[in-house]
Amino acid sequence: MTARSSLTIVLAAGEGTRMRTSVPKVLHPIAGESLLAHVLAAAPKGAGSSIAIVIGPEHAAVEKEARRLRPDADIFVQRERLGTAHAVLAARQAIARGADDLLVVFGDTPLITAETFARLRAPLARGAALAVLGFRAADPTGYGRLLLDGSKLVAIREQADASEAERAITLCNAGVMAMDGRRALAILDKIGNANSKGEFYLVDAVSIAREQGLEAVVIETSEDEVRGINTKAQLAQAEAVMQNRLRRAAMDAGVTLIAPETVYLAADTTFGRDVTIEPFVVIGPGVSIGDGAIVHSFSHIVQSKLGRNSLLGPFARLRPGTSLGDGAKIGNFVEAKAAVLEAGVKVNHLSYIGDAHVGANSNIGAGTITCNYDGFNKHKTTIGEGAFIGTNTSLVAPINIGARAYIGSGSVITRDVPDDALALERSPQTTREGAAARFRNAKSRHKK
Amino acid sequence: MTARSSLTIVLAAGEGTRMRTSVPKVLHPIAGESLLAHVLAAAPKGAGSSIAIVIGPEHAAVEKEARRLRPDADIFVQRERLGTAHAVLAARQAIARGADDLLVVFGDTPLITAETFARLRAPLARGAALAVLGFRAADPTGYGRLLLDGSKLVAIREQADASEAERAITLCNAGVMAMDGRRALAILDKIGNANSKGEFYLVDAVSIAREQGLEAVVIETSEDEVRGINTKAQLAQAEAVMQNRLRRAAMDAGVTLIAPETVYLAADTTFGRDVTIEPFVVIGPGVSIGDGAIVHSFSHIVQSKLGRNSLLGPFARLRPGTSLGDGAKIGNFVEAKAAVLEAGVKVNHLSYIGDAHVGANSNIGAGTITCNYDGFNKHKTTIGEGAFIGTNTSLVAPINIGARAYIGSGSVITRDVPDDALALERSPQTTREGAAARFRNAKSRHKK
Amino acid sequence: MTARSSLTIVLAAGEGTRMRTSVPKVLHPIAGESLLAHVLAAAPKGAGSSIAIVIGPEHAAVEKEARRLRPDADIFVQRERLGTAHAVLAARQAIARGADDLLVVFGDTPLITAETFARLRAPLARGAALAVLGFRAADPTGYGRLLLDGSKLVAIREQADASEAERAITLCNAGVMAMDGRRALAILDKIGNANSKGEFYLVDAVSIAREQGLEAVVIETSEDEVRGINTKAQLAQAEAVMQNRLRRAAMDAGVTLIAPETVYLAADTTFGRDVTIEPFVVIGPGVSIGDGAIVHSFSHIVQSKLGRNSLLGPFARLRPGTSLGDGAKIGNFVEAKAAVLEAGVKVNHLSYIGDAHVGANSNIGAGTITCNYDGFNKHKTTIGEGAFIGTNTSLVAPINIGARAYIGSGSVITRDVPDDALALERSPQTTREGAAARFRNAKSRHKK
Repeated sequence: MTARSSLTIVLAAGEGTRMRTSVPKVLHPIAGESLLAHVLAAAPKGAGSSIAIVIGPEHAAVEKEARRLRPDADIFVQRERLGTAHAVLAARQAIARGADDLLVVFGDTPLITAETFARLRAPLARGAALAVLGFRAADPTGYGRLLLDGSKLVAIREQADASEAERAITLCNAGVMAMDGRRALAILDKIGNANSKGEFYLVDAVSIAREQGLEAVVIETSEDEVRGINTKAQLAQAEAVMQNRLRRAAMDAGVTLIAPETVYLAADTTFGRDVTIEPFVVIGPGVSIGDGAIVHSFSHIVQSKLGRNSLLGPFARLRPGTSLGDGAKIGNFVEAKAAVLEAGVKVNHLSYIGDAHVGANSNIGAGTITCNYDGFNKHKTTIGEGAFIGTNTSLVAPINIGARAYIGSGSVITRDVPDDALALERSPQTTREGAAARFRNAKSRHKK
Repeated sequence: MTARSSLTIVLAAGEGTRMRTSVPKVLHPIAGESLLAHVLAAAPKGAGSSIAIVIGPEHAAVEKEARRLRPDADIFVQRERLGTAHAVLAARQAIARGADDLLVVFGDTPLITAETFARLRAPLARGAALAVLGFRAADPTGYGRLLLDGSKLVAIREQADASEAERAITLCNAGVMAMDGRRALAILDKIGNANSKGEFYLVDAVSIAREQGLEAVVIETSEDEVRGINTKAQLAQAEAVMQNRLRRAAMDAGVTLIAPETVYLAADTTFGRDVTIEPFVVIGPGVSIGDGAIVHSFSHIVQSKLGRNSLLGPFARLRPGTSLGDGAKIGNFVEAKAAVLEAGVKVNHLSYIGDAHVGANSNIGAGTITCNYDGFNKHKTTIGEGAFIGTNTSLVAPINIGARAYIGSGSVITRDVPDDALALERSPQTTREGAAARFRNAKSRHKK
Repeated sequence: MTARSSLTIVLAAGEGTRMRTSVPKVLHPIAGESLLAHVLAAAPKGAGSSIAIVIGPEHAAVEKEARRLRPDADIFVQRERLGTAHAVLAARQAIARGADDLLVVFGDTPLITAETFARLRAPLARGAALAVLGFRAADPTGYGRLLLDGSKLVAIREQADASEAERAITLCNAGVMAMDGRRALAILDKIGNANSKGEFYLVDAVSIAREQGLEAVVIETSEDEVRGINTKAQLAQAEAVMQNRLRRAAMDAGVTLIAPETVYLAADTTFGRDVTIEPFVVIGPGVSIGDGAIVHSFSHIVQSKLGRNSLLGPFARLRPGTSLGDGAKIGNFVEAKAAVLEAGVKVNHLSYIGDAHVGANSNIGAGTITCNYDGFNKHKTTIGEGAFIGTNTSLVAPINIGARAYIGSGSVITRDVPDDALALERSPQTTREGAAARFRNAKSRHKK
């Protein structure tokens, strides 16, 4: 079956008005990626696999996301919204190329897996003209019912047209369909719009195929997998299902999630061996976590790399471009951005390390801030190996702190510090005996 | 029906000993407001609607909360606890005024909605003397069972008095009752205390009404809605139900809650269009969030206003009196209190901005602290438009920083800075070559 | 029954390969303690109670934990893994001492309570030779079925050997067993290995006891309680069950948990009266929280003591050795470690207080950092009563700040400050009129 070529048509023209937002529906994210990205990730890949994406007019943002995700995809615009079959035929040019398998999927059902798509294509290799994805609905009201004759699919009956007996059927149409790619146009072109809404419905492909003496079958999957997303509540439900999949996969791979229901992962998060994640952690896209790393509670990580046995948090934030070397440690109330921290570096408390490179085993004191922005441009801070930066230090970038340099607490460092040098910016301490008592007495008299 | 006048009697005299706390039961909060506040919010409002609240002796705190919430309410003290009917009659003076509808509700059932109260009153307008709120109990053990004759309520049978057959009934008494206001006293005064505890029970109103040839009916609602609160565990369950309602309403209005189960809202939170709330956010009372605003994870917000397209967090705390202008941004490990941040202001990291006004588009560097407290009084900080405050700056209030002023990093600013001026408090940097190496050698010899 | 002596054998030799980690299975923690610790905590205690722990070879870490938890326990090594009965007999030397009751438990079932163990021992006092812990399995597939004859246990039938009728039995073997201690060896020594794997199975004890005319019974408990832990997902499930128990117990004792499902407790957390814990709080081992204390959201606490009416967070981290006096307050983005804060101390914002003692009613300003580490050694900071530390201050330890001393903002304090003195480290403020405008113009010309 892998030898068969495929065309996957992704219907992504929906406006998603029930989402009550100006963002096109398929661009809403779950697990850090757009719905469209999830659908494309599950679609057939590799040699012989092509993609067509049908978008709505004025959906430049969708087109941009589609091109970012799959530069090789054909993108078609459905000018008018005249039904699902009409949407599929917007990609007529791609269908006409005659792939072995035509797969019609929706941009708003991001939970269907690659395995399910493979199962759906399998009957075509065995000679079926059409395979429809079905599911057992807990409450079938409103769904099209799948009418079977033995193992063959006879028709898809919409709720409105269903008899009492047919309404009792719980096997429902998920909308997704695989068709014999070379027979597809002959079927699709026969679909009419003689119905109350005057639209062209893809479900009619079943009865047309049957009329042509072709075989249609049903491939069943779970209701959870095929749920479409029309509202923000459904978007949140899909996020929950996806997160549970990601958490489960992480635990199966040996990651310790103390409270998995409180850890949010991205679809592309990668984990080494013996990783521990405490409760209340948010991991965005582009994060890899090395062997033995521990992520403490209340950490927020995006596009960053944690080395072996590195420690993070609690209360740490890693923004894009941060890399922690082996055994490096980022502690509480610390933010890092575009910062490379070599092995063994410690930034334990209350710091901002941005646009910086910190050499191995350096110790960055509490309250240290890399002043990377002067109000106009961003500048870089470089700290050598084994340096010690005292507390409450401001490193005014661009600046180089040498290896093994020592910076006194409370300094504002504006000029480079050589290797092994000690640098300080400080006045002499003034201590006035009794002055606090006098100040207190004066203030007490004037207390507001 | 809206033309009918109403008296709502809220029974709030319970001690709540099972809560194991010194706080009177009805003052415990859910979703940021007391149980009493939720009950009063759902009670009939507007012209012709009056409220009586029955509190226990030594419940000055309840009286205070009641007066804060409904200054127009009559407050009655139930001196002895002799049963629910006795509690209702503590408000005899209010009942005697003869409103059309008398509604008896409990201060510890905060989940009953205004719609349910309206449904409960409806039968009175149609001539019934009494309507009892009922629910289908998953486990009816311990509840009073509602005995029906067709659609009419015949009696409420307590668990102890129920026959085997009656115990099988799952329709139970929620305690809440609506009565014909002009017949109420005639019924209530007939309730006796010839029972094992010697108390006056409101449930007896049903059989008395029936004896008087009057009609009693049942209005059914869900068990979740009528749950009373007697323990801390039940308080937490009510919080969960209320939070789910608030989350659902927010999503239905178009708010994106990535993980709704991790977002805590207050009953009065308001949202604009296209708002996104990331996981792990706590919103207390008095918060409004403008169109397009994004609240990142680990944010905590109370009595604050977020402008259009403002950005908050992660790890941000807004305390009462904070206002973010359009496009303003409060980043990680930042606290703001009584602070007006005009449009475009950025406070990205590790700062405390309290008792302050910051002009549009100013940039507040990491580690900036408004020193609003001198140990005796609080003082105000004013920053003009387009100012730039360098990192690790202390602004010693009272202080005025002019528009477009520029403050050097690490400064303690104690005197006002004019518009367009540069201010600095700093010593010259001292760099001693080789001194860190010498220091390290000396320390290594004496390492503890 | 309390007069009966007992030997509890804990089988802890499992490798836990399905955990996919290098840590021995019984050392994985839930609720802040190892699985082994939970099992030992529930095992019989006090006079006449002895413990034997059977560990695997190369399990030095398990032995260390076992000795830490129960220095009095006998530790035996099972050199080869030849089945559960073989593991029990590794402790032959302890069994031979002939305790009244022999209890065989597993190191990876941490949810069984002391009450259940007591129930399991009870039949021995009444003359039974053997009591097996059973549970009703939602899905019994794979479990050994308990075959009863009236109230007597006849045999434990493994899945593979079970008839169709026996497979329908849902009462399953939890593995845990109590035996008459003086008859145990006679039974255990009869267990053979004539089975497909050639191992010695403890379940065979039932039929052997029956052959010897002895009585075997079943004590039933819930499936949740007896779940073993073989995978990271099961470890997380056990954590969830344990957390729910701890939360429920806290609420029953009067603690207000606004959102209990978001609060993580340790098995040894203690609470005073009228404590409130907001959502999203993580409490590790060794924490006690005094009467009236409030822990705000996003707080992380380990081995610390909160005094009466103390306030913590939001966004606070207490590391080991922190003690808050009555009414003390630790606010947002504050970390404390090995710090004693006397009554009424306030550390409201953005501070690190480590290796410190702070006298009563002192006020520590935002951005204050105790510089406890000089790159070589840790040093102590002492602050007297009623002191006021200005914002962004660095206290370079070792240092003593006197009672009622006042430290000016932005100071680096390196020398001791006497009582009632005012100390300051600061340069004069320089203000250059128009300089910001000139700087801005220059920068704008060179903006990258």
